[in-house]
Amino acid sequence: MTGEQSLGVTPEQRLHELGLELPGLRPRAGNYVGYVRSGDLLFLAGQGADGWVGRVGADLTIEQGRAAAADCMLNLLAQTRDALGTLQRVQRIVKLLGFVACAEDFRDCPAVIDGASDMIAQLFGDRGAHARSAIGCQALPLVFAVEIEMVVEIGAR
Amino acid sequence: MTGEQSLGVTPEQRLHELGLELPGLRPRAGNYVGYVRSGDLLFLAGQGADGWVGRVGADLTIEQGRAAAADCMLNLLAQTRDALGTLQRVQRIVKLLGFVACAEDFRDCPAVIDGASDMIAQLFGDRGAHARSAIGCQALPLVFAVEIEMVVEIGAR
Amino acid sequence: MTGEQSLGVTPEQRLHELGLELPGLRPRAGNYVGYVRSGDLLFLAGQGADGWVGRVGADLTIEQGRAAAADCMLNLLAQTRDALGTLQRVQRIVKLLGFVACAEDFRDCPAVIDGASDMIAQLFGDRGAHARSAIGCQALPLVFAVEIEMVVEIGAR
Repeated sequence: MTGEQSLGVTPEQRLHELGLELPGLRPRAGNYVGYVRSGDLLFLAGQGADGWVGRVGADLTIEQGRAAAADCMLNLLAQTRDALGTLQRVQRIVKLLGFVACAEDFRDCPAVIDGASDMIAQLFGDRGAHARSAIGCQALPLVFAVEIEMVVEIGAR
Repeated sequence: MTGEQSLGVTPEQRLHELGLELPGLRPRAGNYVGYVRSGDLLFLAGQGADGWVGRVGADLTIEQGRAAAADCMLNLLAQTRDALGTLQRVQRIVKLLGFVACAEDFRDCPAVIDGASDMIAQLFGDRGAHARSAIGCQALPLVFAVEIEMVVEIGAR
Repeated sequence: MTGEQSLGVTPEQRLHELGLELPGLRPRAGNYVGYVRSGDLLFLAGQGADGWVGRVGADLTIEQGRAAAADCMLNLLAQTRDALGTLQRVQRIVKLLGFVACAEDFRDCPAVIDGASDMIAQLFGDRGAHARSAIGCQALPLVFAVEIEMVVEIGAR
């Protein structure tokens, strides 16, 4: 079943309807690559979001953290499109692992990472229903507020 | 080879012998699902354990942390049974990634996550021998003390 | 294509040229195993590095953190060789997840984990191009400075 059949529109069309577009590929922060395919799985390197630095619950509000998570997802989807040519080849978003640089005893990491999960739901419908963990951490590369990594299952088309 | 053949009893029978039972599925903390299957792998979302909040090494003892990790595993196994119908279809517990909200310089995350690993060993025998990482972190969703995610290989039966 | 064909030398030969050798398998810190194979994927448990304890950016310099990350990778490769018999059966290094115990607001986790990534690049060439996340955390088992877990794709040979 293609993306058109399940949602009526492609993920790219949904992006356009939402007034969003995929950014260019961010430069890597080290000696690694943005994604590796193995069999039907695409393993994506963690992506931060430029412009969102500091700790959620201290320097940033939850709403700002959500915006950062959404930008992380746009960066992940830009890598996915680079890997597959089109987001229509996404068979399933399998899993997210989200890290939130946060204040001590911050309890709302799930609300922050929902910024990414909500975008997936809007773009991919049932194919976007994913497993997830959301973790609060001490520090992220370049003092990013949020970093997310993703596993995608690739379809035939 | 079925669970009966390797252990003499099924994982469900072992649970019963240990005086344990699988809890109901916990409500999700965000816009995601409890598990996604891709090929023979089942990727489970991170599970915390209700009732165990705070930091191990400060608010909670190591032994309490172990009990929290065991409860996380019961929640993960409840999801696994929901996905597969029966724990007998678990071919192998592949990997755990365990997070422990902890005091600074807490060094006993492995002892905490062993609360989950020991349960797997008791229930699944050789099929429960899993790879693992145990990480101390700043904060977990809802100030849970422990959160664990899991990858399971699914057998034919 | 074998390791010899892509690099001219095997990963083991490259190790020798670099004056390195794989250490013995470290004792496990809990009730788990060093690796689990599922299909063509080898999931490796997190490895720390003995002798490197404390927080990078406070107790340890970035350069010391890089050395710790390199030692983690040697421990991971020792496990990989134990699993596969020879590093030549590594088809691809798929993914690293690196944790750095660090000072608050430490921003250089990528430079630390590059200690592991650079070694992979030297040993495996194109086959070593991997996805990665680098996360700063509160505490690691046994107060290790760095812990890294890895997923490897296994080739036919």
